[in-house]
Amino acid sequence: MSTYPETFQGYAIDNSTNWNKSKLTSYAPKAFEANDIDIEIECCGVCGSDFHTVKGNWWELRSLVVVGHEIVGKVVKVGPSVTHYKLGDRVGVGAQARSCLNCVRCKRDNEPYCKAAVFTYNSAYPDGYISQGGYASHVRVHEHFVFPLPEGIKSEHAGPLMCGGLTVYSPLKRFLERVRDTNKKYGEEDVTVGIVGIGGLGSMAVQLAKALGYTKVYALSRGDSKKADALKMGADGFITTGEKGWAESHQDTFDFILNCASSISELDLNAFLSTLKFEGTFSSVGLGPANESFSVSAGSFIGNRSSMTSSGLGSRAECIEMLNLVVEKGVIPWVEEVPISETSVNEVLTKCGKGEARYRYCLTNFHEAFQTGKN
Amino acid sequence: MSTYPETFQGYAIDNSTNWNKSKLTSYAPKAFEANDIDIEIECCGVCGSDFHTVKGNWWELRSLVVVGHEIVGKVVKVGPSVTHYKLGDRVGVGAQARSCLNCVRCKRDNEPYCKAAVFTYNSAYPDGYISQGGYASHVRVHEHFVFPLPEGIKSEHAGPLMCGGLTVYSPLKRFLERVRDTNKKYGEEDVTVGIVGIGGLGSMAVQLAKALGYTKVYALSRGDSKKADALKMGADGFITTGEKGWAESHQDTFDFILNCASSISELDLNAFLSTLKFEGTFSSVGLGPANESFSVSAGSFIGNRSSMTSSGLGSRAECIEMLNLVVEKGVIPWVEEVPISETSVNEVLTKCGKGEARYRYCLTNFHEAFQTGKN
Repeated sequence: MSTYPETFQGYAIDNSTNWNKSKLTSYAPKAFEANDIDIEIECCGVCGSDFHTVKGNWWELRSLVVVGHEIVGKVVKVGPSVTHYKLGDRVGVGAQARSCLNCVRCKRDNEPYCKAAVFTYNSAYPDGYISQGGYASHVRVHEHFVFPLPEGIKSEHAGPLMCGGLTVYSPLKRFLERVRDTNKKYGEEDVTVGIVGIGGLGSMAVQLAKALGYTKVYALSRGDSKKADALKMGADGFITTGEKGWAESHQDTFDFILNCASSISELDLNAFLSTLKFEGTFSSVGLGPANESFSVSAGSFIGNRSSMTSSGLGSRAECIEMLNLVVEKGVIPWVEEVPISETSVNEVLTKCGKGEARYRYCLTNFHEAFQTGKN
Repeated sequence: MSTYPETFQGYAIDNSTNWNKSKLTSYAPKAFEANDIDIEIECCGVCGSDFHTVKGNWWELRSLVVVGHEIVGKVVKVGPSVTHYKLGDRVGVGAQARSCLNCVRCKRDNEPYCKAAVFTYNSAYPDGYISQGGYASHVRVHEHFVFPLPEGIKSEHAGPLMCGGLTVYSPLKRFLERVRDTNKKYGEEDVTVGIVGIGGLGSMAVQLAKALGYTKVYALSRGDSKKADALKMGADGFITTGEKGWAESHQDTFDFILNCASSISELDLNAFLSTLKFEGTFSSVGLGPANESFSVSAGSFIGNRSSMTSSGLGSRAECIEMLNLVVEKGVIPWVEEVPISETSVNEVLTKCGKGEARYRYCLTNFHEAFQTGKN
């Protein structure tokens, strides 16, 4: 059925009113450029961004769109300028497909923040082509945004790390370094992190925080339904934020809080800020619908000179670092594998929107669905 | 008229409905403790906090209150455990009168954030005494919160530095150091700061940022009425934020923005955040009424991984550093001197509330008003 390389096949959504009615569709890939790589996809994780995109929660669909940006597959074509890969390499692709690679942000390994960034789907290339993601037979991406997968990790576990894992790894790594720099002055070694929202992102955040070496990792959730799982993931403690007085009994506790909850409007931000140590940071990688907001005043931060920030994706350098750490520490993301089909795509997007994943879906069996994998 | 040391005299407000009707009043000072110092006051700056406190904008008046926390005077009594000062020393007192000096915050020179902090006025000591400030004949304070004034600075210029100056110095110093640490990795030296709101705090912030060595200091104000003054204060540039498109034409400009505007609700925070460089910080020292708030979403910060924070006061160590810097660099705050009286206290508080100070008032002639200064 696949007519690669002129045409890719994927499960596409034509507009947001049909967000849960994907159709197997043929479409032309982007123009092939000198640093591009074609990947025959083996599996693809399901990210909250996929749901928000097809629903039009962040911005409108720019065309018929194939979502999916936690892609694992095999290199089947390399452009003439490609230096990192050869045919047959097992590789991953996350949420970013392009940047200028020349601005100050790109040069300092902050390419997710490049103003010319193109994301893996529903994002415009300079020539107007709208990028298409990984619920598909193939994907075509600049090699900088293709990551080498070490042998010690299974493809279905690597998928969810490409976006979800990297998105939490990047801020966890940077804040750990910053706090350790400060602590050095005072001979202190403890660094405590709170992970808010134990879903797809949060589960990987608990595991990666432990792997990175945070002294104490707390999981924070409204109720206690995820307590047993969070402790199995490696959390040192579990805090139920639906209980009155939780913040009062955890003052001066966290150096860093990473909010992974998909809905931010229900959080009492002032309560979370009050649990930070002096100059602690609250960072949100959970991005709800565009109209969700926090209300804060200058006074929200003044008791402990805390900060609020957020973070998006991670760099190529960080992704390679993370993959090595995952193999070294034996991290295995909690993934439910689901063979890809029109029905299953619609189901996982629906469950993802309801927060029902335990804890991350990875769509599999791409070779059967697209009749690929024969070379 | 003064009956010191049993009784102090000050211009007191009895409740917030009479916020602009101060009365010369006698009151008992706090109990004299072993590390306390009595200061015969020479002059006292007028801070926005004085206005917000008498108006009850932050919290209710806890008693009859004498405001003023930019105090300069002469040591006239020292407790038996005092080690830093002797009778006759010229000293200053800012907005803080006490902390535990024993917690992790105090031990790391972050005593303004001590949970046992007592502020200079309208704040309760452990024994229930409500602190009284510096529109007065004398003030009694723990020596840690009394700062030695170097010879090269005039008392009327030192006053406004004790709260306003220190409040902007502390975040300016810390963020400059942090940015320089990051820049070192990349061989970059430029550090650019934007000072928002050119009033009492903002004017000192422009001067202190230049003295600290920021490469470029921009003054930001809604209109251009303060442009000429800001440039005289040393600003390298002036940006009119009331003009449409100002933020679009200053993307990626600031490492740090210090908001000194007294009203924060009128600021378009998302516009300011968009002008920060990657990982830049927006900090607010301007504190409007308690009910003023910003609305932000996780997306507000994600374009450049910027942060929002605020900052309160500064430490003893920072105050001493600042005073030395001010003398070394010849910084002279823009101060309007006003002889103290019931009428003038009421006038300066009124003008302060309207933002009419150019740029900071310092109440003077205390010896005449209180019949002190005779020893």
